[in-house]
Amino acid sequence: MTKHINKIKISSKNALTATEYLNGIKSGNRAILSKAITLIESSTPQHQKIAEELIEICLPFSGNSVRIGITGVPGVGKSTFIEALGSYLIEKKDKKVAVLAIDPSSKKSGGSILGDKTRMNNLSVNDSAFIRPSPSSGTLGGVAKATRESIILCEAAGFDTILIETVGVGQSEIEVKSMVDFFLLLMLAGAGDELQGIKRGIMEIADGIFINKADGENIDKAKLAIQEYKNAIHLFPPNSNGWTPKVLSCSAIENKGITAIWEVIESFIHLTTSNGSFSNTRKLQSKFWLEHTIDSSIKALFYANEEVNSKIKELENQVTEGVISPFKAARELITIFKS
Amino acid sequence: MTKHINKIKISSKNALTATEYLNGIKSGNRAILSKAITLIESSTPQHQKIAEELIEICLPFSGNSVRIGITGVPGVGKSTFIEALGSYLIEKKDKKVAVLAIDPSSKKSGGSILGDKTRMNNLSVNDSAFIRPSPSSGTLGGVAKATRESIILCEAAGFDTILIETVGVGQSEIEVKSMVDFFLLLMLAGAGDELQGIKRGIMEIADGIFINKADGENIDKAKLAIQEYKNAIHLFPPNSNGWTPKVLSCSAIENKGITAIWEVIESFIHLTTSNGSFSNTRKLQSKFWLEHTIDSSIKALFYANEEVNSKIKELENQVTEGVISPFKAARELITIFKS
Repeated sequence: MTKHINKIKISSKNALTATEYLNGIKSGNRAILSKAITLIESSTPQHQKIAEELIEICLPFSGNSVRIGITGVPGVGKSTFIEALGSYLIEKKDKKVAVLAIDPSSKKSGGSILGDKTRMNNLSVNDSAFIRPSPSSGTLGGVAKATRESIILCEAAGFDTILIETVGVGQSEIEVKSMVDFFLLLMLAGAGDELQGIKRGIMEIADGIFINKADGENIDKAKLAIQEYKNAIHLFPPNSNGWTPKVLSCSAIENKGITAIWEVIESFIHLTTSNGSFSNTRKLQSKFWLEHTIDSSIKALFYANEEVNSKIKELENQVTEGVISPFKAARELITIFKS
Repeated sequence: MTKHINKIKISSKNALTATEYLNGIKSGNRAILSKAITLIESSTPQHQKIAEELIEICLPFSGNSVRIGITGVPGVGKSTFIEALGSYLIEKKDKKVAVLAIDPSSKKSGGSILGDKTRMNNLSVNDSAFIRPSPSSGTLGGVAKATRESIILCEAAGFDTILIETVGVGQSEIEVKSMVDFFLLLMLAGAGDELQGIKRGIMEIADGIFINKADGENIDKAKLAIQEYKNAIHLFPPNSNGWTPKVLSCSAIENKGITAIWEVIESFIHLTTSNGSFSNTRKLQSKFWLEHTIDSSIKALFYANEEVNSKIKELENQVTEGVISPFKAARELITIFKS
């Protein structure tokens, strides 16, 4: 059945109840896990109804994993890195690894680049690994919500390590940071590469910065890059969880440095579980998702309002032209919304 | 009349129309400018009505200034720096300087630390300077809105340089960044001082980082700090406006380095007006304030809803305990709100 993972359609013939989904997921049925993720990505109202129920009943079985976010610009080697790390964890640490992805730019026709099974040859055929490409439609908010819910499903399925890929541009890093325990940034070494298009602020939210492709001629440049990033990190204010971000190099394609990287992640987990910040962070993240979802929902209500819609473009223009203040424009629109 | 600036109460005896306020402001009447700012800070509905009208009629006379944000932790020397910079601009550059402040923690009784006239001896008695402490009540959003509107009033009054102080902790930096043209970060030199409690991400939004108290024994440490910050900035991605943040040192109390700092700000203005990013940024800021005000207003509507209020604490607890998903909790609250 695993061969048909991407071809299962939700039809009334195949329709499962939430409980049937849960039982299949808990028993390790990959096809049902995939089908469940497709269900939660769906925007059809009847699917959403079952999906909502499914998430709630999965919740008591979730939480028992380490969630790791991985970002970096296209070309830095995320797929190769995930392949190396995932294989190491399965073969040497007896883990069960799920790989998810957030890529709001992913198009329906092509599927997403991230989590592309064809680039993770070992993992994609491994029974202890589960790879899911990014949902390919909708807003960043919708994609992030689906990913957040997929984590719950994968944990209920028994995966103890969840890797979540995202591209290092756009807004998705903040979303990923808010759903993982450890957030790592993959960089390249080499003069000029430091500017690599990473969005401002990502360096400061990383728990680990790992310089990839530290092989061949690049080894010396990688050492230099490590020192530069350590110096920069030294200038940042301390984290409230007591963790100082670590900088290491690796060569994912040569399978070097992966053990050391995992040891960094393990020491992070040890520190943060000991001092309580691990579970505290997860509570704050839940609260963040509650507020975040409320915000998006009421904004959606507002911007869907017909009268607001008919007036907003004109008022926006008046604001940027300096004809009326943004405050007056906002007040007019809110008054329209309330009435 | 300038002696009574802080003692003017808004009473029906003294009540001015919006047009009378505008005429007073444009003619250079300081007392009326102060009274107008007190008006816009007021939360009384009848004051708010006049305030709204006043802002709209001031708008055509606003915009003709350079707006500079100044942040740094308490103790870094912001007041002394503003005194030195403000005096230089008035005495050597023939400017008219207004000093505003955002300090949401400021208490009604004590007034705010920021913009404290008693620490700016020269400016506080100078006819070409106008100093206003932070509004002392309300939320950060309310304080930021009042400050944003005060800029409009000060510009209508003919001030061509607006300095806006904020403390380097909390959330106010993003608010200030969104209302200024140039955002500068004051730091101290010295081993360990780099960690100084500056919130993560502020370094990356600064257009200039200036190391203060570069005097006496600190001179060498200041040189070292300059190099460290330049190295860190080199690692950040480039700004879309083409500007590379500059790092300099100064000693505000010895009045050293101020000229060089103003030259940096002038070259920033020259670059960004030439390449169009100056006015483009102001347009984006206006749009930001429109969206920001809409967001706060509809959130306020939501959280003021009686039924929502009665359910929200319980649902929040269920979420952090992992009993229900944040998405389900949000949905329940939105359903209550819509009904």
